[in-house]
Amino acid sequence: MCRILDKINSPKDLKDLSGNELVQLCGEIREQLLLRLSTTGGHVGSNLAVIEATVALHYVFDSPTDKIIFDVSHQCYTHKMLTGRKDAYTDPEKFGSVSGFTNPAESEHDIFSVGHTSSAISLACGLAKGRDVKGETSNVIAVVGDGALSGGEAFEGLNNAAALGSNIILIVNDNDMSIAENHGGLYQNLKLLRETKGKAACNFFQALGFEYFFVSDGNDFYEIADVLKKAKDTDHPIVIHMCTVKGKGYQFAEEDKEHWHYMNPFHRDTGKLRQEAVPAETYEGLTAEFLANKMRKDPAVTAITAGTPKVLGFEQELRNQFPKQFVDVGIAEGHAVAMISGIAKAGGKPVFGVSSSFLQRAYDQLSSDLALNCSPAVILVFFAGIAQGSQTHMGVFDIALAANIPNIIYLAPTCKEEYLSMLEWGLDQTEHPVVIRVPGIETVSRNGALLSEYCHPAKYEIIEHGTTVAILALGKFLGLGEQVRKKLETDHGIHATLINPRYVSAVDEIMLKALTKYGHRLVVTLEDGVIDGGFGEKIAAFYGNSPMKVLNFGAKKEFVNHVTLEEQYFRYRLTPEQIISDILNEI
Amino acid sequence: MCRILDKINSPKDLKDLSGNELVQLCGEIREQLLLRLSTTGGHVGSNLAVIEATVALHYVFDSPTDKIIFDVSHQCYTHKMLTGRKDAYTDPEKFGSVSGFTNPAESEHDIFSVGHTSSAISLACGLAKGRDVKGETSNVIAVVGDGALSGGEAFEGLNNAAALGSNIILIVNDNDMSIAENHGGLYQNLKLLRETKGKAACNFFQALGFEYFFVSDGNDFYEIADVLKKAKDTDHPIVIHMCTVKGKGYQFAEEDKEHWHYMNPFHRDTGKLRQEAVPAETYEGLTAEFLANKMRKDPAVTAITAGTPKVLGFEQELRNQFPKQFVDVGIAEGHAVAMISGIAKAGGKPVFGVSSSFLQRAYDQLSSDLALNCSPAVILVFFAGIAQGSQTHMGVFDIALAANIPNIIYLAPTCKEEYLSMLEWGLDQTEHPVVIRVPGIETVSRNGALLSEYCHPAKYEIIEHGTTVAILALGKFLGLGEQVRKKLETDHGIHATLINPRYVSAVDEIMLKALTKYGHRLVVTLEDGVIDGGFGEKIAAFYGNSPMKVLNFGAKKEFVNHVTLEEQYFRYRLTPEQIISDILNEI
Repeated sequence: MCRILDKINSPKDLKDLSGNELVQLCGEIREQLLLRLSTTGGHVGSNLAVIEATVALHYVFDSPTDKIIFDVSHQCYTHKMLTGRKDAYTDPEKFGSVSGFTNPAESEHDIFSVGHTSSAISLACGLAKGRDVKGETSNVIAVVGDGALSGGEAFEGLNNAAALGSNIILIVNDNDMSIAENHGGLYQNLKLLRETKGKAACNFFQALGFEYFFVSDGNDFYEIADVLKKAKDTDHPIVIHMCTVKGKGYQFAEEDKEHWHYMNPFHRDTGKLRQEAVPAETYEGLTAEFLANKMRKDPAVTAITAGTPKVLGFEQELRNQFPKQFVDVGIAEGHAVAMISGIAKAGGKPVFGVSSSFLQRAYDQLSSDLALNCSPAVILVFFAGIAQGSQTHMGVFDIALAANIPNIIYLAPTCKEEYLSMLEWGLDQTEHPVVIRVPGIETVSRNGALLSEYCHPAKYEIIEHGTTVAILALGKFLGLGEQVRKKLETDHGIHATLINPRYVSAVDEIMLKALTKYGHRLVVTLEDGVIDGGFGEKIAAFYGNSPMKVLNFGAKKEFVNHVTLEEQYFRYRLTPEQIISDILNEI
Repeated sequence: MCRILDKINSPKDLKDLSGNELVQLCGEIREQLLLRLSTTGGHVGSNLAVIEATVALHYVFDSPTDKIIFDVSHQCYTHKMLTGRKDAYTDPEKFGSVSGFTNPAESEHDIFSVGHTSSAISLACGLAKGRDVKGETSNVIAVVGDGALSGGEAFEGLNNAAALGSNIILIVNDNDMSIAENHGGLYQNLKLLRETKGKAACNFFQALGFEYFFVSDGNDFYEIADVLKKAKDTDHPIVIHMCTVKGKGYQFAEEDKEHWHYMNPFHRDTGKLRQEAVPAETYEGLTAEFLANKMRKDPAVTAITAGTPKVLGFEQELRNQFPKQFVDVGIAEGHAVAMISGIAKAGGKPVFGVSSSFLQRAYDQLSSDLALNCSPAVILVFFAGIAQGSQTHMGVFDIALAANIPNIIYLAPTCKEEYLSMLEWGLDQTEHPVVIRVPGIETVSRNGALLSEYCHPAKYEIIEHGTTVAILALGKFLGLGEQVRKKLETDHGIHATLINPRYVSAVDEIMLKALTKYGHRLVVTLEDGVIDGGFGEKIAAFYGNSPMKVLNFGAKKEFVNHVTLEEQYFRYRLTPEQIISDILNEI
């Protein structure tokens, strides 16, 4: 079968195609995407939604002279197929050759490495300003989802783009969905604009000063291409409000948009997963169960998410049970943290669940809105730790981020019993902002010593009393610490002390001093995060003026893109053998 | 003279006053504020603008049952006068008894300690949600300036407030000014609304779903009080768009709004400063001069500010000279950092100047938008270090914030020559995000060793070769290090080594190893910031497995409100005598 797609090796190859051929190409891409997505998994809904728009963009504009920035860039698969990376979607052996996000290391058509939402407009403003001061001409285009507009950075970008006074084209890809449903007043206006085909007088984008185009069917190649042609080479800021269907062309994805936002490998005919997930107890599930119980008993308990309700284990059904107490603020982590400070001040009991990587958006709010006001709110940090993911979603920076802010108690439970104990205490107490680092995905059970309260000063838990060497194994790394301890004992006859520090944010000075007294010569810290600014350095600094030696183990300060866990552990000397080798070197 | 003001000890005392009396009270407050402001200095413009609105708020609503949140809260002076703290504005002996921002430690009428802009709406959303889940009733009111609306957190708040479905009243205090003039598309809409007396069909706030009220003269007590009465006890979200005059009632302040945003003590009759600032060379001035020269020669050089152009030394006249190359993005630090990443990718040479305290807003953008993309942009961090300021504006957290992000080169110059050398290199190089910690306000000159490039790995500067003790004195603290070194020599015969580390973000491993070789037994780190997550801990960790002792000196992890520099230095053992005493203890 002779496909048009087979002849496309760069955007230039689109230029001489007829309209019919371009429409046929869209169909071929959709078919090919479904083949690959069903095999490897990936972001299904958003990529199926923007096939026509992406083909039209590369047909009308001249990348890389014209710059196309995809917000989040999880919807860039068609873009990659059209810009010399088709094999990564057609040849199973090359499926692993590209990442799921734009990446300048892969292609000159990818301007930025992106993964967090709401940043494309600001980045595009920068490209446009750089172009203008250098006296160059080109089009700068940002493709932004409706969900991303709830993020403050997107608004800051819109506000500035509108006043740029030169060429910038923002394509608002409105599929009426974030990962889950949208929340916020803005979405009433998008709805009104969809219903009036862009004719409503009260128009959010026009209020900001943009020239506004409406595309009623962004999955109609001709309609979107026509509007792009009109916008091309504009000398002023333009918003193209384009309606698309998330999951377009694949029935299951169109019908259950939230679940098909991202999907593991599936059977195309049935939409069923190829490998049904083995039911295991997860911290998400445990959290949802715990919170739902609390919320039923106490109306003051509120659960907050910033556009990712499933991180807290709150599927649609559970959300429906708590229309007042479960709050999705949209993709707005900063607002979420300030809001929980307010809820706590009003006597509510708020719990905000967020991925380590997205907590980064809320540093100032953690400090100024929450910690400075000592508001008794709880933040649960999910997906923290070294992982084989994208460099855009690393979970290793939250320790330096949150543990160095005054007043915040940052806790690292080691197992589900300790996690629930800390969560329960955090919810009930009325004096401290409490952050809890959720220890992984699947739960671990342990018969440890729980505290009745987890205030500062820190009280670490001695799990095994030994001598010579003390291992401080933080949070999820307690398992690694236990492996090291056992191996030291069996292979080298060293009876080491094993400690669960419990606290990321503080040092148990009494216990650390006692270690010196009781015959320890080396303290080893293990943390599932970057060493710089982290937990281990606090221990090293504490022992700075003592003869106690300290070895810090953890991740290096670097961005890591899809490197296996094993390789990263090896690189950071985090295997039990390497740790023991380093220990033996010192004693 | 019998004043109404003298009888006001709580908001309750307003309730029985007639309209004429309340208007008279506003006049008395204005008079009293000018008396105090001219004596002590303070935020002149914003406080004179909201006298009538604040009196009306406390007349119509019932604080503290009804919650009034002031954004930034630099405009809270009248609020403080009406809520039991009048003496702090009438009795010169008590002028120091209140801070310039709201503070729950002072009064139950101050709900939050606030200082950063754009957070009030989010905090108010939290109060409203907490009220709702607890089944209580009260009004929640946030007072937000037009300038604050450019901040992303304010938009996230608006988007959520509009969808809250219950009582929340947002007063947009539109005086058509930020600290300097406003920037961004939103301000075109505010202008349109002012010109149409709120009647324009395209209305930013209505687009978000708010019921909208327009107050054409917010300095007319009757007009604002009438609208507040209508809004009181609303069951849905309301925006009151209120026009006021910044500096109202004081001619000099009305005529030069930017300079009168904050003013040191002045002669009321002439508007002249009581103490003319002694002209000294400042880093702001030096920066402006350097950048202006570069910008004249190279159109690719761009200077960016987030609403505080004077931090970069760019007064109005200088801004006018560079309409394309000088960019004020409004109060939008996150956008600014993403934007400079874009400018750099497009081949421009951007420099973003920002206060240490406000850089906090941009942590994620520093990491995701700038560092991950290795964009060669420069950030200048002003007002870093321990200071006698408000707990809301501390400059001691930027080290842990920025120095632990991969790819960022964080430099700490010690003097103007080194500052300019680093700035020049940062601007010319094309590979690294470079952050420079500006060493104080007045410049210091020193004949040090400059580098031709400041890439990682770090190369520290040995200023004095000694033995036994090595002092690593970071940035501005080099002077302190030199004091300690001299005193050790003269008083104790110890010839210590003095080192300028140059780099906040990296360790010079070669030099640190050499210190061990050349007879040093103790390394002392001095940093003008919080120790936790900072520079000294990296040094302690480096020497963790060696016999070298390390002492870290710096600020404690705590919020500090208006404590003198001397007292903080003493508290943190940062006086030369204390440092020497601690050194002698160890050797």
